[in-house]
Amino acid sequence: MKLSLVRSACGSLRIHPARPGSRVSLLSRRCPPVGPTNSRLILRTASATSSGGASTKIAVDFGKQSQKDEGFECDSSLREIVQSAKEAMAALQKRNPALQPMLAIIQIGLNITQICLAKECSEDEIVEELLKLNEDPRVHGVYLHLPPASLTSRVLNTLKPEKDVNGISDLNMGRLVRGDLSKGFVPPVASAVLDLLENHGKSVLLVGEDGPLGVALQCLIERSGMVALKSQWRSKSLQTQVMQADAVVLLGAGNMDVPPTWVRPGAAVIRCEPTLETGTVGCIVINVVRSGRRWLQEQQYRPWQLRSLKLQPLTPVPSDIEISRAQTPKPVDQLAEEIGLLPEELEAYGRSKAKVRLSLLDRLHAQPDGKYVLVAGITPTPLGEGKSTVTIGLVQALSAHLKLNSFACLRQPSQGPTFGVKGGAAGGGYAQVIPMEEFNLHLTGDIHAITAANNLVAAAIDARMLHEATQSDKALFSRLVPSVNGVRRFSPIQISRLNRLGINKTDPASLTPEEISTFVRLDLDPSKITWQRVLDTNDRFLRKITVGQASTEKGQIRETGFDIAVASEIMAILALADSLEDMKNRLARMVVGTSRSGEPVTAEDLGVSGALAVLMKDAIKPTLMQTLEGTPVFVHAGPFANIAHGNSSVLADKLALKLVGRDGFVVTEAGFGADIGMEKFFNIKCRASGLRPNVVVLVATVRALKMHGGGPNVSAGAPLPREYIDENLSLVAGGCHSNLRKQIQIAHLFGVPVVVALNVFRTDTQAEIDLVCQLAKECGASDAVPCHHWAQGGRGSLELAQAVNEAASRPSNFQFLYNKEMPIVEKIRTIAKKVYGADDIKLSPEAEAKIDYYSQQGYGSLPICMAKTHLSLSHMPDKKGAPTGFVLPIRDVRASIGAGFVYPLVGTMSTMPGLPTRPCFYDIDLDPVTEEITGLF
Amino acid sequence: MKLSLVRSACGSLRIHPARPGSRVSLLSRRCPPVGPTNSRLILRTASATSSGGASTKIAVDFGKQSQKDEGFECDSSLREIVQSAKEAMAALQKRNPALQPMLAIIQIGLNITQICLAKECSEDEIVEELLKLNEDPRVHGVYLHLPPASLTSRVLNTLKPEKDVNGISDLNMGRLVRGDLSKGFVPPVASAVLDLLENHGKSVLLVGEDGPLGVALQCLIERSGMVALKSQWRSKSLQTQVMQADAVVLLGAGNMDVPPTWVRPGAAVIRCEPTLETGTVGCIVINVVRSGRRWLQEQQYRPWQLRSLKLQPLTPVPSDIEISRAQTPKPVDQLAEEIGLLPEELEAYGRSKAKVRLSLLDRLHAQPDGKYVLVAGITPTPLGEGKSTVTIGLVQALSAHLKLNSFACLRQPSQGPTFGVKGGAAGGGYAQVIPMEEFNLHLTGDIHAITAANNLVAAAIDARMLHEATQSDKALFSRLVPSVNGVRRFSPIQISRLNRLGINKTDPASLTPEEISTFVRLDLDPSKITWQRVLDTNDRFLRKITVGQASTEKGQIRETGFDIAVASEIMAILALADSLEDMKNRLARMVVGTSRSGEPVTAEDLGVSGALAVLMKDAIKPTLMQTLEGTPVFVHAGPFANIAHGNSSVLADKLALKLVGRDGFVVTEAGFGADIGMEKFFNIKCRASGLRPNVVVLVATVRALKMHGGGPNVSAGAPLPREYIDENLSLVAGGCHSNLRKQIQIAHLFGVPVVVALNVFRTDTQAEIDLVCQLAKECGASDAVPCHHWAQGGRGSLELAQAVNEAASRPSNFQFLYNKEMPIVEKIRTIAKKVYGADDIKLSPEAEAKIDYYSQQGYGSLPICMAKTHLSLSHMPDKKGAPTGFVLPIRDVRASIGAGFVYPLVGTMSTMPGLPTRPCFYDIDLDPVTEEITGLF
Repeated sequence: MKLSLVRSACGSLRIHPARPGSRVSLLSRRCPPVGPTNSRLILRTASATSSGGASTKIAVDFGKQSQKDEGFECDSSLREIVQSAKEAMAALQKRNPALQPMLAIIQIGLNITQICLAKECSEDEIVEELLKLNEDPRVHGVYLHLPPASLTSRVLNTLKPEKDVNGISDLNMGRLVRGDLSKGFVPPVASAVLDLLENHGKSVLLVGEDGPLGVALQCLIERSGMVALKSQWRSKSLQTQVMQADAVVLLGAGNMDVPPTWVRPGAAVIRCEPTLETGTVGCIVINVVRSGRRWLQEQQYRPWQLRSLKLQPLTPVPSDIEISRAQTPKPVDQLAEEIGLLPEELEAYGRSKAKVRLSLLDRLHAQPDGKYVLVAGITPTPLGEGKSTVTIGLVQALSAHLKLNSFACLRQPSQGPTFGVKGGAAGGGYAQVIPMEEFNLHLTGDIHAITAANNLVAAAIDARMLHEATQSDKALFSRLVPSVNGVRRFSPIQISRLNRLGINKTDPASLTPEEISTFVRLDLDPSKITWQRVLDTNDRFLRKITVGQASTEKGQIRETGFDIAVASEIMAILALADSLEDMKNRLARMVVGTSRSGEPVTAEDLGVSGALAVLMKDAIKPTLMQTLEGTPVFVHAGPFANIAHGNSSVLADKLALKLVGRDGFVVTEAGFGADIGMEKFFNIKCRASGLRPNVVVLVATVRALKMHGGGPNVSAGAPLPREYIDENLSLVAGGCHSNLRKQIQIAHLFGVPVVVALNVFRTDTQAEIDLVCQLAKECGASDAVPCHHWAQGGRGSLELAQAVNEAASRPSNFQFLYNKEMPIVEKIRTIAKKVYGADDIKLSPEAEAKIDYYSQQGYGSLPICMAKTHLSLSHMPDKKGAPTGFVLPIRDVRASIGAGFVYPLVGTMSTMPGLPTRPCFYDIDLDPVTEEITGLF
Repeated sequence: MKLSLVRSACGSLRIHPARPGSRVSLLSRRCPPVGPTNSRLILRTASATSSGGASTKIAVDFGKQSQKDEGFECDSSLREIVQSAKEAMAALQKRNPALQPMLAIIQIGLNITQICLAKECSEDEIVEELLKLNEDPRVHGVYLHLPPASLTSRVLNTLKPEKDVNGISDLNMGRLVRGDLSKGFVPPVASAVLDLLENHGKSVLLVGEDGPLGVALQCLIERSGMVALKSQWRSKSLQTQVMQADAVVLLGAGNMDVPPTWVRPGAAVIRCEPTLETGTVGCIVINVVRSGRRWLQEQQYRPWQLRSLKLQPLTPVPSDIEISRAQTPKPVDQLAEEIGLLPEELEAYGRSKAKVRLSLLDRLHAQPDGKYVLVAGITPTPLGEGKSTVTIGLVQALSAHLKLNSFACLRQPSQGPTFGVKGGAAGGGYAQVIPMEEFNLHLTGDIHAITAANNLVAAAIDARMLHEATQSDKALFSRLVPSVNGVRRFSPIQISRLNRLGINKTDPASLTPEEISTFVRLDLDPSKITWQRVLDTNDRFLRKITVGQASTEKGQIRETGFDIAVASEIMAILALADSLEDMKNRLARMVVGTSRSGEPVTAEDLGVSGALAVLMKDAIKPTLMQTLEGTPVFVHAGPFANIAHGNSSVLADKLALKLVGRDGFVVTEAGFGADIGMEKFFNIKCRASGLRPNVVVLVATVRALKMHGGGPNVSAGAPLPREYIDENLSLVAGGCHSNLRKQIQIAHLFGVPVVVALNVFRTDTQAEIDLVCQLAKECGASDAVPCHHWAQGGRGSLELAQAVNEAASRPSNFQFLYNKEMPIVEKIRTIAKKVYGADDIKLSPEAEAKIDYYSQQGYGSLPICMAKTHLSLSHMPDKKGAPTGFVLPIRDVRASIGAGFVYPLVGTMSTMPGLPTRPCFYDIDLDPVTEEITGLF
């Protein structure tokens, strides 16, 4: 029996010739689909070789019983191949209706090489096509139907091995030789031959020229348990060998053949063209299906293969920058691969940081979230109690030591304080994000983008007021809606404003003079502009300034000021947005001030919100970095913790919760003490994101507990009083019974279990440590453990990691503290009484007026973001422990409408830090030869 | 004769066992070196197998004549291998003394697997080592001396194929099978066997288990013209085959052997262990030398393999953003590879832009520079005449059409005007940098870094004045030089200040009260602070402001202002620095104001210059992008063209001149007309860089020439008068004879040939075009050609490219216009008379006083950077053509000491643009689903 398999028709698969250079979707030409659902083949062809029928074939002779049967019929074994490929494809598509396995074929006919392409160009052209196909996620296989001369090293190296369904790239050939077929592809011709060899005996003789195909066949034959022997046409023993063989495969035979008389009865003779012109469609389809299946597997959640970095902590602990520099971070693309990110989901920024695309959320939408852990703190001393180091130490312990997937989600620090007093914010000691200098400086430019966006709004406000003050309605209208080539048209953003004004017109000529006036005049009240400019610099002289004093501004001077960039409402929006669209809508809603008639004026009214979204389009992607132990970290957003909510971004948490998998952990941190940061995390961030926390880690220190127990004042710069250095159990107990107990109770208000993490300092005694852990549990903590991450890295936080893992396995019973539909004043009162322990609140007349105004404007159902000191549960920074019997005064109330919260001011909040007499920058330097940075800490 | 090659001693190469996990440099153990100069071997071993001598060997039997000769002696053929490897290495090192071929061996003994590593860890450990070795540029080969079980797919995939001197990675095996040995490595055992087979006849029988080694051998044997036959131990025909073979290779024989009687007299029998424990040192060394040679070749200049992107220009020409979006840029790492950059020289920022490291200058220091072309313009209309598009069109033509390497070096545009009036600056039409939105927005953050650095200086100035005003000398001193753990120490930056003050002390306690006072008080005169804050936003209300009005600033209010960020002196420094060190020194020298006693106060005096260098450390690396036709572009720095010199960076030009090669072209652009931009390019930029231009391309338009010939006013926003739309040869001729002639003459003052590029508009007639080209040549241009790049891309600039190539082949005779040691006033006068055509200059009293002051301060030898209108050769914007008979008034003189120039002010310069009534941002929007940007142009 002889089979001819013709390329232009095989089973239901049909390949049409196409106009040179054109792209033809067979589907659109109503070709019979391969599988039960639609499959598309892109055929990019430059030849017409197969328009009339066969030009290449595999001829298979089964010894003497061969039967001439040229034509379009398939041999049963090949039919089976095609059939099984169809079935495999159908099964795949049933489970994943979105998958449409797609094969791209590149083919050059002789005609075209002569006509379309300069001779020396053709490799470039092929390479260009290949690069496009490599990048095209819809293409799962590329079949190179090219003359051997075109299969140059460059062409073969260009094609992505995972799309090389010919199985001819060097990497795939090497895999085949090594016997690893988990990733590569078997050349279709070799597969077809191997299928035909099945049940034809053990001994196979390969006759003829060798080459990659011969090598592949030989390896496959031997690996399938048969014996491969080789011979040449000219070999004297050819006849003997043929006679002994169960099957003979003729490679590159051309006109040569073995005399039928040599062949043992029942033995198969398979003619096999070694050029790559030959192919069997069924086996190609199998490879494409295989590629599609691998692609699907790749799209699915992949278990981590995290390779942690070894730590060898030194004593005494060196400076932060020395520790950071001593560790070589993994290349970020490698880290990304380890945690199951796809290369196309990553945008590298240098070697050690990358932005991660939000498309990840679509890809893993079906993946269950991991556990969600919040690190909060007791009321801190002015020195801080180490929430960031606890967060980083905890993920180092979880990932690198307990081998539980975990992600830290951190805030990006402001660059201002880096050069002022505070120094870096990447953690400290052996619990750090590395490289710490990149974490602390420009990072991937998000804060710079916020600065640019914030200040574009400010410039738009003042310029608009100037133009309104100096132009008539008519002049304004003709400039705002200019005639372009004789046509006046509203831009989409102007239509939005018209709609909000109740003017449902789209033809500029149809507006009445009154409507024109309403439209062109925002009529901003200069005294009621709430929008400030920002800089990411500690520049105290910009706190209060007068602008517009140049003669060009025609006397339109007014008082205003600059905040530090992270205090911008746009930073709060970045932290709360859960998609690009959500961010854009929030940016449009931002209220920048009030018109003289009392109406809120938004960024969209200024026509600037589309530009803001453009400026922020990259900032919305979280930045991937790593800890000292090579575990992943997202750095994203860092809003102020008093006038905003002080939590890192919703998006970073969401991405991380998908990536860690069901049993993994996402650990994030809330600014300030739990009374502020945690309360806002629950009531604002979790409300916006819909995410529910599993565990709260409450960070305490012996130092802060002693302060709450009645110890003397602690202040930055001054030496610590003796009480804080010597053992003092009664002060510790006092702190536990007051502040620690209260903060645990606050977490329980929300129904979340608490693990107390005691951040151990060198001066803490064992008795003090034991006492804290014992009392914390008595106060209701699920567990309480000492942590030594600063000196030991993840190993020092193992106990904490185990406690968190244990607590996370218990059911959590999360609930909000208040219903957002409650009146603003009731929401404030609830927080003050239940969280702070106040007897009541007292509103200033200004605060009362603002609350009325916001309620009337429809902002009454926004959650509350309290702007209160973090140094006490009360509004009085010097009242430590758990104060009671006080009334919380509300001086004023403001609102961030775009971010989506109302913020009552309890006291005065500074939103622009200053530089001290000797700022950090005195010690910061760069070695111009080694490029090493010194003086960051 | 029998040869035993023992691993522990072969020729002069010795491998010592080492302590598990330790790194041993054999050199330090005084081992005999392999080559004539020192070669080092890193041996990372965990076993002691070879401490006593042989454990693995190749045994070679030459038939019956075998001779027992166990021991340390080498067979002559192996001796030859080692010898020739030594010689090859010596030759390599003679030419490149810096090369020290280095081989890294990874080896795990059984002991260690049990002792040091957890069983499941060992693959991780190997992978971790491999990753380090992959990244280590000093390691040229990694020899995996591992048990087969450890050679997992992951291990083999981790090792970089270019360091796989075992030749066992899949990619290298595939290359070998395909017969391409230009990149991979032949497994050393296979090489050794092949060497032994030489001259032993044609027919080789391979007996035994197959595997990668057998496949490799078989391919090599067949490729060397011999016939490889295969047999199994159990084969019935084994004896026949052995008897017919000229040589028999026994693979994985174990205890098996062929009876000597079977072997034909004179035939060789080679026993060959298929495990990778076996190796021949000579062949490994050859592979390492080969790898070292390839590494060296890689380090050398590599001809470009630029793959240009095809353009299919549409008519009418679509909007810039539509054209940009329709073209898919090459991935930037691919572009980098095409132009000969090494992967480690690139820092990607997303997919389509990357910073290039300055180490490239060291690597290619011996490479001759390419040709240096400056694009300047005649005096423009307010609409601009298209220098950027000419620049981009020219490189598209040179690279993509003439196949001459070329690089465009462009300025980074300010983001402010992108949202104001101007729109994008990435070129236009079919001559653009893509993706244009990334070019026009944050790019790689350089301008943001400048903003941060500039404003840190400003904050430091005001904070310092406040602290000096409110503290005693003693308080200031104790804060500026604080006691840390009881020790007071000056920081290095403070020592620098002390040195400048003439106080050569390093012990803070030794300063006299007078010295303390001098040291701690910068005593800045608030009225003489020249440092302004900056923002990259068009914010006109910040032109003149009052700062310090908050009560916390204690009444220290003062008037100051903001400039647009690109007007910062730091931007000018970025553009002129030629190394990190040079930039750091320039930042330290920046003068921010004057003390009350008249001394200049620098950034170093403020203690901030180290921090500035840290903020700017990434900004100093140029950003690589591409044109619409896929040709390379550097975008780097963009200083103002009036108060600064308006040219892109020296470093980008230097990097590009190396990359294009001797016959390539670097095309860069000067701001404004040639009288300003070109004059500054020559006198300031070329003076700073030492680079010499070969050709000036002078851009003209029929429109601008008509204006200079007496046509009516042209202004932005207003429709063009008829004269500019209809043919008018006399106006054209007038413009050629006045402004064009003068600008050509200016270029000739510097001895550089001029090619006039007529940027053709749709309304230009053929007669007008012909006239300009004819008159331009009459006026002294080497050539003059029309350009159609806007409508046609590079193809439209082919004539220009040819003309530039021709002009660049002529000798250039470059000279500066003035000697920098001339008095400031003479330098100004020279420019005014020779370049502008003025009769003389007239200094205001203020200007005279400043010149005296700068001369006295030692700044007299700085070059001059004129701040003059670009709309006329004179200082009067409405005087078109080539005005004469005027006296140039110098209103004031300022200096940028860090950047290194004095800038006389001719009239008032605005350094902060404003927003119009309807800024561009009204049309700019982002589709939140497709992420496409609209409205940028």
